[in-house]
Amino acid sequence: MAMVRLVEYAEAEAGVRAVYDDIMTTRKTDWVNNFWKALAHHIPTLERIWSTVKVVMAPGAIDPLTKEMIYVAVSITNNCEYCIHSHIASARAKGMTETQFGELMAVVGLANENNRLANGYQIPVDAVFRQQF
Amino acid sequence: MAMVRLVEYAEAEAGVRAVYDDIMTTRKTDWVNNFWKALAHHIPTLERIWSTVKVVMAPGAIDPLTKEMIYVAVSITNNCEYCIHSHIASARAKGMTETQFGELMAVVGLANENNRLANGYQIPVDAVFRQQF
Amino acid sequence: MAMVRLVEYAEAEAGVRAVYDDIMTTRKTDWVNNFWKALAHHIPTLERIWSTVKVVMAPGAIDPLTKEMIYVAVSITNNCEYCIHSHIASARAKGMTETQFGELMAVVGLANENNRLANGYQIPVDAVFRQQF
Amino acid sequence: MAMVRLVEYAEAEAGVRAVYDDIMTTRKTDWVNNFWKALAHHIPTLERIWSTVKVVMAPGAIDPLTKEMIYVAVSITNNCEYCIHSHIASARAKGMTETQFGELMAVVGLANENNRLANGYQIPVDAVFRQQF
Amino acid sequence: MAMVRLVEYAEAEAGVRAVYDDIMTTRKTDWVNNFWKALAHHIPTLERIWSTVKVVMAPGAIDPLTKEMIYVAVSITNNCEYCIHSHIASARAKGMTETQFGELMAVVGLANENNRLANGYQIPVDAVFRQQF
Amino acid sequence: MAMVRLVEYAEAEAGVRAVYDDIMTTRKTDWVNNFWKALAHHIPTLERIWSTVKVVMAPGAIDPLTKEMIYVAVSITNNCEYCIHSHIASARAKGMTETQFGELMAVVGLANENNRLANGYQIPVDAVFRQQF
Repeated sequence: MAMVRLVEYAEAEAGVRAVYDDIMTTRKTDWVNNFWKALAHHIPTLERIWSTVKVVMAPGAIDPLTKEMIYVAVSITNNCEYCIHSHIASARAKGMTETQFGELMAVVGLANENNRLANGYQIPVDAVFRQQF
Repeated sequence: MAMVRLVEYAEAEAGVRAVYDDIMTTRKTDWVNNFWKALAHHIPTLERIWSTVKVVMAPGAIDPLTKEMIYVAVSITNNCEYCIHSHIASARAKGMTETQFGELMAVVGLANENNRLANGYQIPVDAVFRQQF
Repeated sequence: MAMVRLVEYAEAEAGVRAVYDDIMTTRKTDWVNNFWKALAHHIPTLERIWSTVKVVMAPGAIDPLTKEMIYVAVSITNNCEYCIHSHIASARAKGMTETQFGELMAVVGLANENNRLANGYQIPVDAVFRQQF
Repeated sequence: MAMVRLVEYAEAEAGVRAVYDDIMTTRKTDWVNNFWKALAHHIPTLERIWSTVKVVMAPGAIDPLTKEMIYVAVSITNNCEYCIHSHIASARAKGMTETQFGELMAVVGLANENNRLANGYQIPVDAVFRQQF
Repeated sequence: MAMVRLVEYAEAEAGVRAVYDDIMTTRKTDWVNNFWKALAHHIPTLERIWSTVKVVMAPGAIDPLTKEMIYVAVSITNNCEYCIHSHIASARAKGMTETQFGELMAVVGLANENNRLANGYQIPVDAVFRQQF
Repeated sequence: MAMVRLVEYAEAEAGVRAVYDDIMTTRKTDWVNNFWKALAHHIPTLERIWSTVKVVMAPGAIDPLTKEMIYVAVSITNNCEYCIHSHIASARAKGMTETQFGELMAVVGLANENNRLANGYQIPVDAVFRQQF
């Protein structure tokens, strides 16, 4: 059970409905997932996060499926159950195959392992890696 | 300064040299970065991690640049200074543009924010996201 | 289900009862929450953590509600389901309004995002921030 | 050394200068800290994060000093060196005393300890804590 | 519900069965736990992780029970519910007493607290601790 | 540079000196490491943490070297540079061999990897692992 009541469309005030409407229009769906119904508890956050998601996850120099896989990698590392479920669903909806999912998990697992080996041994960064753009 | 002495090629025993040689051959370079010189402290780990990196980071259903970006996303979330430097260098070497890097950072930042919003509100997973393959 | 049996008052030995009694007296309640019933499994930890909580969370230079909100911020960042529930309940009992909760979540979300941006770009600390007291 | 070149005012393009100007005006200072000079690398992120910081960290239902202490608590838990330095400096500038800092650290330490005890014992959430607003 | 279908022995292909057989033979049991049934979704990962677990968790310079307790300490710090359950079960099967479990939890809790105190105060490493082998 | 001035013995007030004296007596050394000199900034924390460390890290049902290795495993997972250095030094002083260190790192790396695989696949806990003591 969520820490706040989920705000359904029927009972939502105008500011919330405006965001819900935009979510459904943008995504070409007729429903809104629980993440937004919880954020509706604090409208400035609801509006800010939605406008950010629309921009950040949109096609750009990185394609939407790759963005979803990056999002999933972070969510697994932070152990966010909600985000793992919702963004793996999004990645699959955008075409992630099961083989790609298996490889994504393998990279996430390996990176987590090697992060600890590098930190545990306190390995100094090679000079050549300290280049900038 | 690392917790263990970095093992240089000149002083390395045969088992270590064999891995260093394979790293240089595989990567078509004439040097080995510090990560491996620290792992050389424990040969079973050196051999295992190298053979894993070769397989997991190789081209597959996910292309190598995307794999590097996923690796970077995990390393930033875990705050591994060594891995952030080395894998951003790898991603750039594989063609990551600065605009892509900016978008990668934006996705990583947003995912970290939303992970906490979802966990903090303890948002229940929507039934539709609980599908399996 | 917990990894250890929760120790109820009726079955508790004297050392455990003494702590439970002090918890109920200090908090002016007639029940003890599960956290303490699990710690009762290892009495030195039960006694130590309770005596620490009494001192650290008490009114001081920082007021109790602010302390609870700081505690909640850490618990969300670490994703501790039990602590998120129990300390949001405490914060509400101490007067946290829903608008304050919304703002708390917004700060926690933003800090988590910016922590990753700062670490990912490996931004050097400005000299002026390196002052001490 | 940062992963990206820090963008100084003198060399910045108009969009970056507009944000820098707003930062200095809002904060009544004549300098910009490194965080923004790194974000300037990706202007959409610079603009978005600055507009978010202005809103989220402003006085509201929670006072600005408390918001800074919450921000510090998250940054310590995530181990963000830059954010620890910059936000402790902000908290001190907003009046945090050294005794308050000592208490803040004590709460952060205790919460991190208890988060692990609760997760390690997998303690079930008490029914009474599952209330909603 | 897992993100992937758990692969049962009866329906498994040959490569998966070979690993399952080796797990049961090595552990002298007649069943396979869910971890492997999920990894079976991506055979290269199943084979690699199993061969790694066999080597890394085997008796060596550190005894198997100590290795399990180290594994549990990491799993609690990362908040992995599955791993907390499975490796505490393994540690108990290898002889961990309840007093040892209580002490393990106390060390894990304290280390997490002190990690944050050290990071929050940004304490410089004493020169004498910077020795190498 | 630490966020607080390190308190040296010569300038310390009586309450701080009492703890420093006890540290040196308990450890049979004539110096105090920086961790305590930073905590001296807030005497209640200095006293509480020292009394806790004395009890929790002392010989008990788990031997002191194993406790140090558990502490190191947590510190690596949390990426606490100070704690990694100081507790690896302690473990070596208590007899940890370099082969043991190599195995410790291997277990820490593997546990971090498998934690993410288990969380990423959201693997359900096997019923048999849900036993209690």
